[in-house]
Amino acid sequence: MKIGIIGSGNMGRSLGILWAQQGHQVFFGSRDAEKGRAVAEFAGRGTQGGTNDEAAAFADVILWTARGIMPKELLSNADVLNGKIIIDCNNQDIPEGFAYPAIEESLAEKLASYVPNSRVVKAFNTMAQEVFELAPEPLKDYQVSVFVAGDDEQARKTVMQLALEIGFAPMDCGVLRNARLVEGLGDFIRLIMIGQQQGSYATISVKVLPAAQEQRLGGRQASALK
Amino acid sequence: MKIGIIGSGNMGRSLGILWAQQGHQVFFGSRDAEKGRAVAEFAGRGTQGGTNDEAAAFADVILWTARGIMPKELLSNADVLNGKIIIDCNNQDIPEGFAYPAIEESLAEKLASYVPNSRVVKAFNTMAQEVFELAPEPLKDYQVSVFVAGDDEQARKTVMQLALEIGFAPMDCGVLRNARLVEGLGDFIRLIMIGQQQGSYATISVKVLPAAQEQRLGGRQASALK
Repeated sequence: MKIGIIGSGNMGRSLGILWAQQGHQVFFGSRDAEKGRAVAEFAGRGTQGGTNDEAAAFADVILWTARGIMPKELLSNADVLNGKIIIDCNNQDIPEGFAYPAIEESLAEKLASYVPNSRVVKAFNTMAQEVFELAPEPLKDYQVSVFVAGDDEQARKTVMQLALEIGFAPMDCGVLRNARLVEGLGDFIRLIMIGQQQGSYATISVKVLPAAQEQRLGGRQASALK
Repeated sequence: MKIGIIGSGNMGRSLGILWAQQGHQVFFGSRDAEKGRAVAEFAGRGTQGGTNDEAAAFADVILWTARGIMPKELLSNADVLNGKIIIDCNNQDIPEGFAYPAIEESLAEKLASYVPNSRVVKAFNTMAQEVFELAPEPLKDYQVSVFVAGDDEQARKTVMQLALEIGFAPMDCGVLRNARLVEGLGDFIRLIMIGQQQGSYATISVKVLPAAQEQRLGGRQASALK
């Protein structure tokens, strides 16, 4: 898969390297082409680097790490995004005292409203970039969730697969409107990490427990075996 | 500890029974005293039952399961709650298509505004009552979080202890305003359970992963031991 990273900071660099390690073709974009190329040189594994325009033109799947900056501000022609999958991994700024305003519209929905012909998917906003250091091993053991919301089912599946490959446990969260809830999780985990001082390795996992009835049946079968 | 259950439906019954099993004195309250007594008879273990007024007067810690119903509507004298800890375990109704409105004020903050002399704590709103069937064993193994928010630190600690005793992993979430985020988690997990069809045993765990550096050091030490 051809993956373009828009904004090659910590988040973009970490995810780009992980996907390159999985054999994907990765292009690191930056406002400063020199910086994009430097990241690619650092990353190795056949990755390329350059401008955001080049990254967007190159890719089928685009990781959008530029929070609150809309495509028309970063790209000379936003139409290059038509039909492509855009992963929005951003959260709102943390306000004084973690007194987050209520989320009336998600950042992902706002981004989608600017690129109505692209398939915007919310994902990767509920963990700090430090967690990527653990990917894909030993991360797999911890079953850390990546929550994936977007209106295009195939796009969600693609992003879930990209999460799975690097050691996360993807969770389908349905339509893009649900990005409001997923961004709420992003606000919550940063409260826990920073405000409640649990640190950058605090993560969220959604687990489906074995139902009580199954456990009782298991118990009965175990008893019958004695 | 003396625990009063206000509204002895599924949630109140399940938690009351679990706390009675841990040796606490539990009083099941109901609008209908006969129903309260019937729940206590079913629960056994020295539990009592009767009116909500009696439950509130009896208890040091009160589980408030009556969503959106304020103390003055349920109790003949809400002053009986002064100084007491009130656990609010409620979530907003699920709207059509899980299109939850943004949380401008939490249910817990609203409850607290009606009983300013009580210590309201948000907790137990992020799991379905089916999960209580697994408590305290094998629930302990799954490290399911109970998120606890309230302005009184001692009250939070008391509720965290009550969560721990019945097999949950309590997580201190700070001040009561953060109940907005915790209620957002309640909205989210019901989307996952019902909207995304993961069922009533879908749960949220916040885990702090071992830091990468510790793991690398562990690796180095392991190498040194070879």
